[in-house]
Amino acid sequence: MDIGQLQPAADALAGRVILVTGAYGGLGEAAARACAAAGASVVLLGRRVPKLNRVYDAIVADGGPTPALYPLDLEGASGDDYAEMAERIGSECGRLDGVLHAAAAFKGLSSLANTAPQDWLRALHVNLSAPLQLTRACLPWLGRGDDAAVVFMLNDPAMTASAYWGAYGIAQNGLQAAVSMLAAEQAGGPVRIHGLRPGPMRTALRASAWFGEDPGLWPPPSTYAPACVHLLAASGAAHRGEVLAVSA
Amino acid sequence: MDIGQLQPAADALAGRVILVTGAYGGLGEAAARACAAAGASVVLLGRRVPKLNRVYDAIVADGGPTPALYPLDLEGASGDDYAEMAERIGSECGRLDGVLHAAAAFKGLSSLANTAPQDWLRALHVNLSAPLQLTRACLPWLGRGDDAAVVFMLNDPAMTASAYWGAYGIAQNGLQAAVSMLAAEQAGGPVRIHGLRPGPMRTALRASAWFGEDPGLWPPPSTYAPACVHLLAASGAAHRGEVLAVSA
Repeated sequence: MDIGQLQPAADALAGRVILVTGAYGGLGEAAARACAAAGASVVLLGRRVPKLNRVYDAIVADGGPTPALYPLDLEGASGDDYAEMAERIGSECGRLDGVLHAAAAFKGLSSLANTAPQDWLRALHVNLSAPLQLTRACLPWLGRGDDAAVVFMLNDPAMTASAYWGAYGIAQNGLQAAVSMLAAEQAGGPVRIHGLRPGPMRTALRASAWFGEDPGLWPPPSTYAPACVHLLAASGAAHRGEVLAVSA
Repeated sequence: MDIGQLQPAADALAGRVILVTGAYGGLGEAAARACAAAGASVVLLGRRVPKLNRVYDAIVADGGPTPALYPLDLEGASGDDYAEMAERIGSECGRLDGVLHAAAAFKGLSSLANTAPQDWLRALHVNLSAPLQLTRACLPWLGRGDDAAVVFMLNDPAMTASAYWGAYGIAQNGLQAAVSMLAAEQAGGPVRIHGLRPGPMRTALRASAWFGEDPGLWPPPSTYAPACVHLLAASGAAHRGEVLAVSA
């Protein structure tokens, strides 16, 4: 789908509370700012507080609703940590209407043979187990309203199942399956599950995988932020359970 | 592919050392016995020693090469444990020509919302991380000869990406991706990577998922054992990097 077809209304997320993981850098940051610009109260989740603060300041400077920060390291977070997170967001914000999974950990192309077991397991955990356990913890709060959305950022599953994509690639294929699995489990309820597969963009992840490529070839991640808003807003209902591929 | 087309020669695995995970019960046990009957020295890996002993006894009674036992709990095994395992198999058997991943943990259909985080993480680990880390540890020994094979037993990825298949279903989709990823990484070397997707069979796993179904409807797992031998033997070279779907 062409990104031009996905220009959400200026107040598309008014009154909604949206949790964004990986909220600094890349598409996570661009999406968090776009969500706030569309009226959402955004909860910025990430590992490093100074970087979260920078996004917070940008949103305030843009005149959006005051965001909240939730510093959390997905590598070490347990089921209890996610439960506490969901409870704190729900009790302090009063609601939760969406989760945008933009966090991704990718340290470059490497074969299974050349990746230390601990590095492999860590990458699988951060890229696959963590977003699903975080989602699980949020479901009770997401299900309280009439309409809520969970959006997983996805990379092409066939490409990431090719040589050297490692645990990140395996996780991508797992998440793709999780979108249809969770969509089926939540069918008939208020919680929509979506995947979003943006085209190539100028990010650190892309530069790590295609290090011989000129990063200037690709559009900035903000190009795909309207697609995130589109899925998180009521307009996303048209794409329930789908993986939406968008191109610039 | 029809199982009748995959009847390997009686000595198809003569002289080969084959490691079978999940070596008791279901297809693992049937395949281990079929590998021994085809001349392989089989290393039986599983959690419970008495059950491994029973398979050992059956292979000896069949007149096959004396198997070895390797009791290991995939849930708790670390990278070091797999490295030690590969080293012991290599040094004691002198070689390693194949790994058949028949271990699977499935506790029944359950939604993400209704699965305790620890149970979910455990199932993902045993069904996805463990077989890949075990494979990684075996690669140096597998690569010493002219021809070796790693075979992952797979279930239909689309079916296991539907509601309630949980971490087992996510893991299945990850393993499917791992077959093509590892095959590409091992291209040009002596190690072949395969997936094998058998038709429905009379196993405990199937009974857990389709509890309203008459188990007698389906053929016993031994029906698919010749397909395992076919891929592990030299004949498997025709299916390098493929997921072979076989029906009874």
